[in-house]
Amino acid sequence: MLFRKTAILGVGLLGGSLALALRKKGLTEEISGFGRSAENLEKAKARGIIDSCHPNDPAGAAAGADLVVLATPVGAFTQIAKAIKNSLKEGSVQTDLGSLKGRLVYDLQEIWPRYVGCHPIAGGERAGIGAASERIFEGSRCIITKTGKSDAEAADMLAGLWSAAGCRVEFMDPFVHDEVYALVSHLPHLVAYALVNTVGDANGDLIEFAGNGFKDSTRIAMSSPELWRDVCQLNRDNLLRFIGSFKKNLERIEAFIGNRQPGELEREFDSARRLRSRLENENENESNR
Amino acid sequence: MLFRKTAILGVGLLGGSLALALRKKGLTEEISGFGRSAENLEKAKARGIIDSCHPNDPAGAAAGADLVVLATPVGAFTQIAKAIKNSLKEGSVQTDLGSLKGRLVYDLQEIWPRYVGCHPIAGGERAGIGAASERIFEGSRCIITKTGKSDAEAADMLAGLWSAAGCRVEFMDPFVHDEVYALVSHLPHLVAYALVNTVGDANGDLIEFAGNGFKDSTRIAMSSPELWRDVCQLNRDNLLRFIGSFKKNLERIEAFIGNRQPGELEREFDSARRLRSRLENENENESNR
Repeated sequence: MLFRKTAILGVGLLGGSLALALRKKGLTEEISGFGRSAENLEKAKARGIIDSCHPNDPAGAAAGADLVVLATPVGAFTQIAKAIKNSLKEGSVQTDLGSLKGRLVYDLQEIWPRYVGCHPIAGGERAGIGAASERIFEGSRCIITKTGKSDAEAADMLAGLWSAAGCRVEFMDPFVHDEVYALVSHLPHLVAYALVNTVGDANGDLIEFAGNGFKDSTRIAMSSPELWRDVCQLNRDNLLRFIGSFKKNLERIEAFIGNRQPGELEREFDSARRLRSRLENENENESNR
Repeated sequence: MLFRKTAILGVGLLGGSLALALRKKGLTEEISGFGRSAENLEKAKARGIIDSCHPNDPAGAAAGADLVVLATPVGAFTQIAKAIKNSLKEGSVQTDLGSLKGRLVYDLQEIWPRYVGCHPIAGGERAGIGAASERIFEGSRCIITKTGKSDAEAADMLAGLWSAAGCRVEFMDPFVHDEVYALVSHLPHLVAYALVNTVGDANGDLIEFAGNGFKDSTRIAMSSPELWRDVCQLNRDNLLRFIGSFKKNLERIEAFIGNRQPGELEREFDSARRLRSRLENENENESNR
């Protein structure tokens, strides 16, 4: 038992899945849930994901909790953190599951006494409590963003929690995190959105001719527009830089097509193929363990 | 029995999978295989995919065949078609499995007496005989590109073949085909290659931090560089047009981020989410059938 009582603030895919993992691994005894929708919370309670519902009352959910988990869209983090800071139990640990860290981590650690940020790389384009499952964490990475001011014991407890949930835990500086994920997650989302809208510009009905390649490459375009709007604001500078770098790569391909340079095109494609294949070998290594 | 003997010219993923489908559905009795690698052909024979091996001898493979299937990279099509045109059996049907049609279909129907082009939307980023399976066609689309000069009986026989293999058959003009697939297949491949190379530009080692979103959206960057080099040459003008349209969409997102316009960003993402979701509903309808 790592935390007797846990408060999940935002009971969607990630928050709900963490609640399930905590319960199945025996890491907590009691789970309270906060959210904007009473109906959603009741659904989570009926599924045994949370024990008590606190619609529109984050302080009520956090009261007496040994672990408080922020799992709403990142845009709401600081406001909720401020709203409940006087309701936190003495000695409790606070964390979040947001896909943005950087500045936000420093803001939250100013507001909360014992906060360490987490980012489980799990969930993808699915959303909502209906898709929640403790299995989404198995074999995933979880980044814990430590700073010079982080409580070391709290960071270790969170590392233990995520390991028990099946994640490979990695510590990272909050600003490095945002740079890395601008590149390997946020940029690909923007590209997927733009790719689908390009079909819409030509003729949306043509999307029905798409095969598995298109489906895979644009699956993340079904992600929450609200979440990605927030990510774009909070990771603005990294994103603008990598959009620029991506455009250079695409324009090089464009020029090789325009100038009929098949050899250069093939080299360009081959370097991408080799780099991307490293992720497949990694998976093979994992399944061989 | 639709075709007593079938010649598969290019025994890779698609050619091998079609051979397996023809055999399992009892649509052919004997299958000959041509390819550049004797070793690959022997492997296909050992797996029962083909009955006879004709390395570097497409005419030998085609001799006596009632159906000749071109399944090499598209760049080699016309050369092979010319090389075997005098070895074709009287009354035999010729086809190809290439992802490019347009001009190529008109060229091939000038060379071959009874040719109709096919494009099964199956296979994705996998390659090689090792991945061949008759199941890749199940539930997939197969486009048959009819022209004013196409042999109607040959087109019907091919439609019957693909239906039996599990495909939903659709007839399409060869040039319309290339426009549609530039948009929903070729452009996404170029975008995926550029996305992976953007990571390479920053620091290739960061790719290991990628989650399922990145993996899905760049899976097609593992496709054959040789194949995609050929596609870029043969579908040059459509591709340049859609790259331009894609860049406009990405630059609109870039501007909304740069100018801090969250409402516009959310609308942009939401229109993509709604269009992309049509493919999921389609899948649900299929599985409900």
